[in-house]
Amino acid sequence: MLHTTHPAYTELAATWQRLHNFGHLQAMASWDRAALMPAHSNEARANAMAEMNALMHRMRTDPLLKMQLETAAGESLDDFQRANLREIRRDWRASNALPASLVQAQSLATARCEHAWRSQRPANDWKGFLENFRDVLKYAREQAHLLADDSGLAPYDALMDAYEPGMTGAKVDSLFGDLLTWLPALVRKVREKQARETVLAPQGPFSKAGQQAVGLEVMRLLGFDFNAGRIDESAHPFCGGVPEDTRLTTRYREGDFVGSLWGVIHETGHGRYEQNLPREWLGQPVAWARSAGIHESQSLSFEMQIGLSRPFVGLLAPILAQHFGEQPAFDADNLYRWLTRVQPSFIRVEADELTYPLHVILRYRIERDLIEGRVEADDIPTLWDTAMAELLDVDTRGNFQNGCMQDVHWGEGLFGYFPSYTLGAMYAAQWFAAIRKANPDLDARIAIGDLNPAFDWLRENIWLQASRWSTDELVTRATGGPLDAAHYRKHLESRYLG
Amino acid sequence: MLHTTHPAYTELAATWQRLHNFGHLQAMASWDRAALMPAHSNEARANAMAEMNALMHRMRTDPLLKMQLETAAGESLDDFQRANLREIRRDWRASNALPASLVQAQSLATARCEHAWRSQRPANDWKGFLENFRDVLKYAREQAHLLADDSGLAPYDALMDAYEPGMTGAKVDSLFGDLLTWLPALVRKVREKQARETVLAPQGPFSKAGQQAVGLEVMRLLGFDFNAGRIDESAHPFCGGVPEDTRLTTRYREGDFVGSLWGVIHETGHGRYEQNLPREWLGQPVAWARSAGIHESQSLSFEMQIGLSRPFVGLLAPILAQHFGEQPAFDADNLYRWLTRVQPSFIRVEADELTYPLHVILRYRIERDLIEGRVEADDIPTLWDTAMAELLDVDTRGNFQNGCMQDVHWGEGLFGYFPSYTLGAMYAAQWFAAIRKANPDLDARIAIGDLNPAFDWLRENIWLQASRWSTDELVTRATGGPLDAAHYRKHLESRYLG
Repeated sequence: MLHTTHPAYTELAATWQRLHNFGHLQAMASWDRAALMPAHSNEARANAMAEMNALMHRMRTDPLLKMQLETAAGESLDDFQRANLREIRRDWRASNALPASLVQAQSLATARCEHAWRSQRPANDWKGFLENFRDVLKYAREQAHLLADDSGLAPYDALMDAYEPGMTGAKVDSLFGDLLTWLPALVRKVREKQARETVLAPQGPFSKAGQQAVGLEVMRLLGFDFNAGRIDESAHPFCGGVPEDTRLTTRYREGDFVGSLWGVIHETGHGRYEQNLPREWLGQPVAWARSAGIHESQSLSFEMQIGLSRPFVGLLAPILAQHFGEQPAFDADNLYRWLTRVQPSFIRVEADELTYPLHVILRYRIERDLIEGRVEADDIPTLWDTAMAELLDVDTRGNFQNGCMQDVHWGEGLFGYFPSYTLGAMYAAQWFAAIRKANPDLDARIAIGDLNPAFDWLRENIWLQASRWSTDELVTRATGGPLDAAHYRKHLESRYLG
Repeated sequence: MLHTTHPAYTELAATWQRLHNFGHLQAMASWDRAALMPAHSNEARANAMAEMNALMHRMRTDPLLKMQLETAAGESLDDFQRANLREIRRDWRASNALPASLVQAQSLATARCEHAWRSQRPANDWKGFLENFRDVLKYAREQAHLLADDSGLAPYDALMDAYEPGMTGAKVDSLFGDLLTWLPALVRKVREKQARETVLAPQGPFSKAGQQAVGLEVMRLLGFDFNAGRIDESAHPFCGGVPEDTRLTTRYREGDFVGSLWGVIHETGHGRYEQNLPREWLGQPVAWARSAGIHESQSLSFEMQIGLSRPFVGLLAPILAQHFGEQPAFDADNLYRWLTRVQPSFIRVEADELTYPLHVILRYRIERDLIEGRVEADDIPTLWDTAMAELLDVDTRGNFQNGCMQDVHWGEGLFGYFPSYTLGAMYAAQWFAAIRKANPDLDARIAIGDLNPAFDWLRENIWLQASRWSTDELVTRATGGPLDAAHYRKHLESRYLG
């Protein structure tokens, strides 16, 4: 190390390599807690993970790092090292921009609010929630303003930057504004069209063993590497673990195979991104997934672009018939019609592809106004009810549990995350526009079970690029231009009116 | 902390609490590696665990600790704190008695030897093994002499002290010498008796689902707490995890339910000890299980004292018939005769209760002579063949894979562990002599499924005592006297000749 031309960079890289190793243990303990851990072990697990969090926080806030970052900036680095240094600095800044007192106060307030929410939501207790939530909002605003001072960004943009670096409220306004000019009309048109179609719903029960077998077969079809990952059960599907050992989960309900199967397809998209991050860079921030929106673009590539495509549904139909028994609803054309039904509803996580973005836009508007002080916590129900009526023609008045209390994000202090879902859907549409351009026979290939044109493109252009580039540059390198809602519109119109 | 009368002790206790928390993550990662981890994740897992080992080693070798230990020895401590300080010092000494260079050389040599052994054993390649093993032995001798210098113990005793504190070669000689005066004759007598009995072997296959159901039912009968632990599968059964989250494993072979079920019963004994260590002391070394021998005494209490008892076999018979279907061999008397068959054989881990100690005595003699320099690695096969012929009347000449290469212990540098297995069997017999004395109706209680007299005694006298006392004091407090082979003899004679 004494003879290197960049000793400070080398020290920084060694520190983040250690963080990668400790993060591995933390990620596995966290996955185990959600998937396997027995109930009474929670306290010991929480203590162990808090100890590790404290250690990793001490490592990230070591005063030496500031000097090393300054020195490294002047060292002779190649482009790759410079990209890694940029990502190291991003991670360092996230841990050092906030005073410990705020982090602790915020952690207590969100833990209290989230814990109470679990019983307040089923009890429809908005007033009880509000009491805890006011503190959560107060600290989130404080956090946003401190991050804004540190970064020069606007307060909401400073929060969003943690999930979607480089994205701003102005850009989101422009993208979502575009959507609002055509999406509500499209929803109406599609619903009128679908009202004239007949569709058969598959009849259950669908045995858990059958659902597991279908899930495994579909994961294999989607290229999940079972030598570097697993699938297990948990209360809510997620993709956890580490790039070298990716742990997916799903849940099974005998009355409904779609929830489990689409959970599997969605998480397999996240999982393949993780499994295909560049192995030779692992341990360094430059090897991390680019952002929440880009991550979501992978799960939605698998779920919406591939999974809901007519040729893929054609592959799925015989697998379902094999494991659940033949029934008329498993006719591929019927199955496709059934899976692509559009129906405005209360709940974001159960929404169809077409109405989902409207749930996101509603949340984005409210959370941005909350953070920037234009509205208060008390205003949420009215804002919610009005927007649900306007965007989805759904009446949520007084129905807090299926209205503004349905998501845990705000109670946990997560502001600025919601846009990632719809940005992800838009990115995914843009990836597949590029994939189709390069592979005019894409549907025919998928129809015979050959998904490699899509996987090869994603591996080359997204997975192996990790955090090598800014998000904008990643998108431009991959598709020739920045994020453009036109691809998304074209995709939705073609699928739902085509 | 400024106002305490024992600031150094308080600092030490805080350090070991942190080690407990980090050890939790390490234990879960280790369990996961054996039970669930996919193959290609091994390198990342090894790196993460090595990073944690290095951190915990740095914590245990921090030069500050030496001063804190000296200061704490002069502080005003109560008896409990003094016991904890004794155990902290034991743990500290184990990490500080050896130079880092030896630890590293040993770690490399044993990793190489163990890894090669995996393929050398099936290939019966003693010469290949010997080449690596000479280094392992060289470092083990160096380790033994350094520990001997540090502790004032004899070299072999210094190694054994890590597993069985307070035990010496002289005491083992005396205990095992006693055994040798009557056990070989007892084996012969029992075999003559059993040759005149007829016994039906249960006929398989025994479905994996059936074995899993039997295992769960038996674990419930044995009081395993499923709110603070689990059972999963691995290549070899073991008890891992932490006291707050005890993870057992077993393996299933459709042709044989006994291997799986007795694995489950054995590991449940280890597991209940861990689960019932005193909760309010957890995090401190005084709450650790007393020793390898005492741990083994719990698994063998479950496996041999309870599991192989006639009343327990009476409970087992209908469970087996329920899950595998009725068959004549599941008659309780026949099942008991079948499970207690005595048959000298090559393999320690497959040996019956009666011949097992002879496998241990043979290994103890050889390993003690190896460490103390009276024999060399090259001498092992001859020593092995001679002792197997003498003690078990079995011919192992040229059969290294089922002879001196069958165990991984020596290749891994584990010398001084083998006696723990038979010391555990002797302790277990002594516990049950005390339990029977306090509960003359023990067999009748077990016969109706009430195992509480045994569990209550073990909880009170062993589990909740943890490392509060030296091993000798623990035994004397529990049973009125030190370890005495007479209880073991009485147990074996009563079971096999009674």
